Amino acid sequence: MKKLNIGMVGYKFMGKAHSNAYRALPMFFPDRLHPAMKVICGRNREAVASAAHQFGWAESSSDWKTLVSREDIDVVDINAPSNAHKEIAIAAAQAGKHLYCEKPLALSLADSREMLEAAESAGIKHMVGFNYRFAPAVILAKKLIDEGRLGDIYHFRGWFLQDWLVDPDFPLAWRLQQEIAGSGAHGDLGAHLIDMAHYLIGDMAEVIGMSETFIKERPLPSDSGALSATSGAAAEKGPVTVDDATLFMARFANGALGSFEATRFASGHRSTNSFEINGSKGSVIFDFERMNELQVYFTDDQEDVQGFRRVLATDSAHAYSGVWWPTGHPIGYEHTFTHAFVEFLDAIQEDRLPSPNFHDGVKCQQVLEAVEQSIKERTWIDVASL
Amino acid sequence: MKKLNIGMVGYKFMGKAHSNAYRALPMFFPDRLHPAMKVICGRNREAVASAAHQFGWAESSSDWKTLVSREDIDVVDINAPSNAHKEIAIAAAQAGKHLYCEKPLALSLADSREMLEAAESAGIKHMVGFNYRFAPAVILAKKLIDEGRLGDIYHFRGWFLQDWLVDPDFPLAWRLQQEIAGSGAHGDLGAHLIDMAHYLIGDMAEVIGMSETFIKERPLPSDSGALSATSGAAAEKGPVTVDDATLFMARFANGALGSFEATRFASGHRSTNSFEINGSKGSVIFDFERMNELQVYFTDDQEDVQGFRRVLATDSAHAYSGVWWPTGHPIGYEHTFTHAFVEFLDAIQEDRLPSPNFHDGVKCQQVLEAVEQSIKERTWIDVASL
Amino acid sequence: MKKLNIGMVGYKFMGKAHSNAYRALPMFFPDRLHPAMKVICGRNREAVASAAHQFGWAESSSDWKTLVSREDIDVVDINAPSNAHKEIAIAAAQAGKHLYCEKPLALSLADSREMLEAAESAGIKHMVGFNYRFAPAVILAKKLIDEGRLGDIYHFRGWFLQDWLVDPDFPLAWRLQQEIAGSGAHGDLGAHLIDMAHYLIGDMAEVIGMSETFIKERPLPSDSGALSATSGAAAEKGPVTVDDATLFMARFANGALGSFEATRFASGHRSTNSFEINGSKGSVIFDFERMNELQVYFTDDQEDVQGFRRVLATDSAHAYSGVWWPTGHPIGYEHTFTHAFVEFLDAIQEDRLPSPNFHDGVKCQQVLEAVEQSIKERTWIDVASL
Amino acid sequence: MKKLNIGMVGYKFMGKAHSNAYRALPMFFPDRLHPAMKVICGRNREAVASAAHQFGWAESSSDWKTLVSREDIDVVDINAPSNAHKEIAIAAAQAGKHLYCEKPLALSLADSREMLEAAESAGIKHMVGFNYRFAPAVILAKKLIDEGRLGDIYHFRGWFLQDWLVDPDFPLAWRLQQEIAGSGAHGDLGAHLIDMAHYLIGDMAEVIGMSETFIKERPLPSDSGALSATSGAAAEKGPVTVDDATLFMARFANGALGSFEATRFASGHRSTNSFEINGSKGSVIFDFERMNELQVYFTDDQEDVQGFRRVLATDSAHAYSGVWWPTGHPIGYEHTFTHAFVEFLDAIQEDRLPSPNFHDGVKCQQVLEAVEQSIKERTWIDVASL
Repeated sequence: MKKLNIGMVGYKFMGKAHSNAYRALPMFFPDRLHPAMKVICGRNREAVASAAHQFGWAESSSDWKTLVSREDIDVVDINAPSNAHKEIAIAAAQAGKHLYCEKPLALSLADSREMLEAAESAGIKHMVGFNYRFAPAVILAKKLIDEGRLGDIYHFRGWFLQDWLVDPDFPLAWRLQQEIAGSGAHGDLGAHLIDMAHYLIGDMAEVIGMSETFIKERPLPSDSGALSATSGAAAEKGPVTVDDATLFMARFANGALGSFEATRFASGHRSTNSFEINGSKGSVIFDFERMNELQVYFTDDQEDVQGFRRVLATDSAHAYSGVWWPTGHPIGYEHTFTHAFVEFLDAIQEDRLPSPNFHDGVKCQQVLEAVEQSIKERTWIDVASL
Repeated sequence: MKKLNIGMVGYKFMGKAHSNAYRALPMFFPDRLHPAMKVICGRNREAVASAAHQFGWAESSSDWKTLVSREDIDVVDINAPSNAHKEIAIAAAQAGKHLYCEKPLALSLADSREMLEAAESAGIKHMVGFNYRFAPAVILAKKLIDEGRLGDIYHFRGWFLQDWLVDPDFPLAWRLQQEIAGSGAHGDLGAHLIDMAHYLIGDMAEVIGMSETFIKERPLPSDSGALSATSGAAAEKGPVTVDDATLFMARFANGALGSFEATRFASGHRSTNSFEINGSKGSVIFDFERMNELQVYFTDDQEDVQGFRRVLATDSAHAYSGVWWPTGHPIGYEHTFTHAFVEFLDAIQEDRLPSPNFHDGVKCQQVLEAVEQSIKERTWIDVASL
Repeated sequence: MKKLNIGMVGYKFMGKAHSNAYRALPMFFPDRLHPAMKVICGRNREAVASAAHQFGWAESSSDWKTLVSREDIDVVDINAPSNAHKEIAIAAAQAGKHLYCEKPLALSLADSREMLEAAESAGIKHMVGFNYRFAPAVILAKKLIDEGRLGDIYHFRGWFLQDWLVDPDFPLAWRLQQEIAGSGAHGDLGAHLIDMAHYLIGDMAEVIGMSETFIKERPLPSDSGALSATSGAAAEKGPVTVDDATLFMARFANGALGSFEATRFASGHRSTNSFEINGSKGSVIFDFERMNELQVYFTDDQEDVQGFRRVLATDSAHAYSGVWWPTGHPIGYEHTFTHAFVEFLDAIQEDRLPSPNFHDGVKCQQVLEAVEQSIKERTWIDVASL
Repeated sequence: MKKLNIGMVGYKFMGKAHSNAYRALPMFFPDRLHPAMKVICGRNREAVASAAHQFGWAESSSDWKTLVSREDIDVVDINAPSNAHKEIAIAAAQAGKHLYCEKPLALSLADSREMLEAAESAGIKHMVGFNYRFAPAVILAKKLIDEGRLGDIYHFRGWFLQDWLVDPDFPLAWRLQQEIAGSGAHGDLGAHLIDMAHYLIGDMAEVIGMSETFIKERPLPSDSGALSATSGAAAEKGPVTVDDATLFMARFANGALGSFEATRFASGHRSTNSFEINGSKGSVIFDFERMNELQVYFTDDQEDVQGFRRVLATDSAHAYSGVWWPTGHPIGYEHTFTHAFVEFLDAIQEDRLPSPNFHDGVKCQQVLEAVEQSIKERTWIDVASL
């Protein structure tokens, strides 16, 4: 089996998740294209060398420019901080590398469009890291909709609730700074909901949002990691420049109504990434904290036994599940990435665009910005106008 | 114990629920004022006589005007169709009767204000039928908030989901006709959410909504009851003139963000009247389908055992629960009314306004109309501007 | 509509529950026989007079012997303490009164058989108060089994978990004294499980049990009520003479395996009266704390959407539910009694034995004693041998 | 970091699970001893070679005798069919290899004792594969008990429910043949429950069980894999020689009462490995289908907010969780093995016995056989008598 050489830029939380997926692929999907973990790249030479060792990469590098132009690299995987995506992606595309880029594609719609254009011009395969699409329970929801088993769709309700910012002493990490993160809960969590809605329901016609930064100032961090940061005693404070929470309503092109909520201030919710869809023939409910389950309701069930079914999407009837453990045995978060990479490598092998790709990344960015504009202008925004 | 003589206008679903509560009161709250079920009143003389017999009223009448001026009537309870509330309420108030009026107070904010004014001028006690406030689990939520145990409130999320209109052949019942019902899901279901938010969080500063009528025409009913209606074969169709679903977002005066959704098109949800509140010290989740439970989370629980608690609000530590059955034994929907009447009769005895009263009814109507205006004008509406 | 005059012996927790059901009947089941709440009877003249007033009985009495022989009494309802059942029931039967007797019928199998014999000889209608059979969700389980929709039954698992005795300072109430209560968790809670198993699965062939009294001595109560009792400071202690917990296994006549557990030492369980049944075509799960729900699974559901359904037994397709509130609106514990009385009165009107009747009461007692014998003899006991 | 060379015998379902864990170790636990995946061994030379390639082993072999005596092997991992464990384990121990052996240790208590003796004589480290101990939520339960936070333990309730044998046409796979599998649900599923009870509660004093084979004959398989097998059309049938379901009750040495149920006939349960523990200060509930959650109840919570907490054991406060994904992100079944190997390698490095070890394997076997004896003799069996 031919192997594809991977060069990956980024080595923190996402770098770890991607590495783990690359390691799992040949064992659990032996008949697919295999990735070769060639080079891992990051700004801190020592840290990235250590990550290479820990994660199992053949080489490490602190120079992404060299990496993306190496002859022996087939694929560039970008999971560096969001503000670095664009430059790397465009250079890699121009060098003819296939691209897997973490979401959000870029910090602006304009940038993400440039990236798409570069990828398309180069004729390479491109994919964007909306990994939650790849939970078997989510794929089951998609299948039910595509097969018409939920009928006409009336409602999409999505909420991504976390609580790590409820403590006002949590420091001003990079995710709370607009120039690096782009936005807060909106781009980080809301983006996943938006992509999920695109995947399951389709395009949005118009949106209107609201957002808030509940804690305006936070202690400056003494050290900054991917998700955490610690502050010294009596630390100086700096302004939080992103949203703590963003909500919006949407009208989908197919007439369905959408409501979306992303927040880091929902005490008790560690990572509730959840949606509900109501259609004329049935409904589904998903909650990532119980990622192996999908609740499913059908209106044509017998009259006396109608009710939401708790379906464990671990049977062989469910996507990807046959390759893992026996029925009823949960898989974890990490394999949303494994499945995503299966799709990516399959697409390369089959010479087709993977899904979701940069088009989806752009579409997500478009809604993110439409919502932001609607917040500024206090009125509905036609998504297509952006 | 002195008894208060009740005259009730209305005898369908709500009339039955109120009658049942009056019957329960002296047995379960023997130390409180007792109601005497004196007269029940409705347009159909025969039907109301039958209801009087079935529900246990001493007399029946088809003439509300006489009823509200009878010397021997202390309280007028109005649960006739919404478009009849105003005239009856004002007449009864002018006759010096205490008033219990079902929600919505009236079909318009202006009308509801007239009603409030009449009640205030007359100096009578007035209450509005937001019965869901009186589930012990909801009262527990209120207590936690009032005692500061949830801290500063960041989010209110309310949804009232039903599915009885998903069938396109369901006929054009009176609840689907604007001139009788005022509005659809918005006024019927959304009103309960709005009042719940007022009760638990406080006033809303501004709102913006969206709504939809998914099925535009329905068969004309051959017969029309309170909640159901049947249509003949090959029935003619008529236009649905109310909303099937209405969503809105709100900014509360205290800075919290609210999202609201009322729909009759949520397959699988018979009557999911639910809310979640997130605060700096904790969160609560309520679902009326499990009305004896409140999920409660505290941020200051020990680090390794943090999680939502499923509290059964049936202990003696919970409001009203001591008078019912032993701990762990559920009570039903009907006793939200029983508890509401306890509050009403207590207030009369203690010569104070009950809660919720017509002020709350007006405030709810104000938000309902602000949302409707925001839908027409496609922008945020300052609630206080109405 | 003819009315049946009721004379009721007992006025505490169960007396209150029965009274409430009698009050509800004519309103919610107007087309059935109506009960007339004629006389309530108890040992404490003052207390029973107060109960008569509170619960709505026409008269009160402290002399059950006179009561059961009154010409104008049609039905005797016995919910006095268990050790009084036998004498009253036999006298009432001999006087030709129909009998509704709370469970357990008596303190011994022999006594309960005498009661059955007296009732049969007198040709009266007799019913035993296994009220949990009458939750609509339980009736749905029965229907699914009877219609073969669960297939052959392999497993019954029943557990009734409470926690009110976990506190070692809880006093030595009458329910903890063998001479009054007969047994502890076994007869109080286990009896309900046994009857449920009889109702849903059928007869048991053999049983083996174990039991324990975790707290051997408790403070003597200063005052003793139905379910609670308080002890003075530094109270003397007395021996607990009943079981705190009893477990047993059973082999049913139809080959199914049963496991049963009744305990008052299950911290966190206020009143978890629950069962699960597994059959060749499906399964059901019930938990009384969510008494309006039945979880239902079918093996022939489509392969990709198999899962337990959460059925709300509040639709018109469910037993009794049409007469209560709209679909999705919970009813409470109290209406298990209301439904039981509907069955009782229907049976009297239709001149047939109600179900469950004294035969069921005897059968339950037989299993209770077989379990006790198995505990003493440390081996399996053939139920039919008793 | 020194590496330990692993030789593994077995390459089917368990071989895959173990291999995956070895692959994960160096990446997620970089500071611990690392395993080197040296040799994988199985009877079918071709199949094991393919597994070696797929799972990432350096070599493959079909000769376990050579394997266990190779100088360069430090650890022998045995996950071959149960009837092969003993011979391999004893030979490997005698050759001085550390041992990781899947459960059940052997097909009989006598055999397992020989294995323990051999391991102890050889002075090697030995561990038995009770992997469910290593779910972080289970470790949390253990911690709560050890720290006294549940108080005195009154009840252990364990049930392991599967449904893969409900179909009577499921063929006679090796797991249904006593000579290979030892027993059915009892040894396969019940063994896990027994070990869990030993881990969390302690030793059992006496037991009594019951068991049943519901389907006595099944089609002979045309081909037999680890967990599945297919039968040809009109296949001949053969007798099922193991139990489909086994239940038992136990009295623990500390006075707690236990009930256990293992079945493959629980329709709707793919793999419900669940337990509940009730103590004087609190309770816990675990269900492997939601393996990241532990429900926890404390009796000393404030009176009005007592209830089972749904704790997600994915915070850094929970065992092992810090090394995986951010809080709230589920891990899967596979990492129970990863954690087990961490314990195994740590014990080797720290020159101590790992836990659970062969003593635990023997103790489990002792209870399994005591239950079997109790079934034959129809009476309680003193566990220590075996």
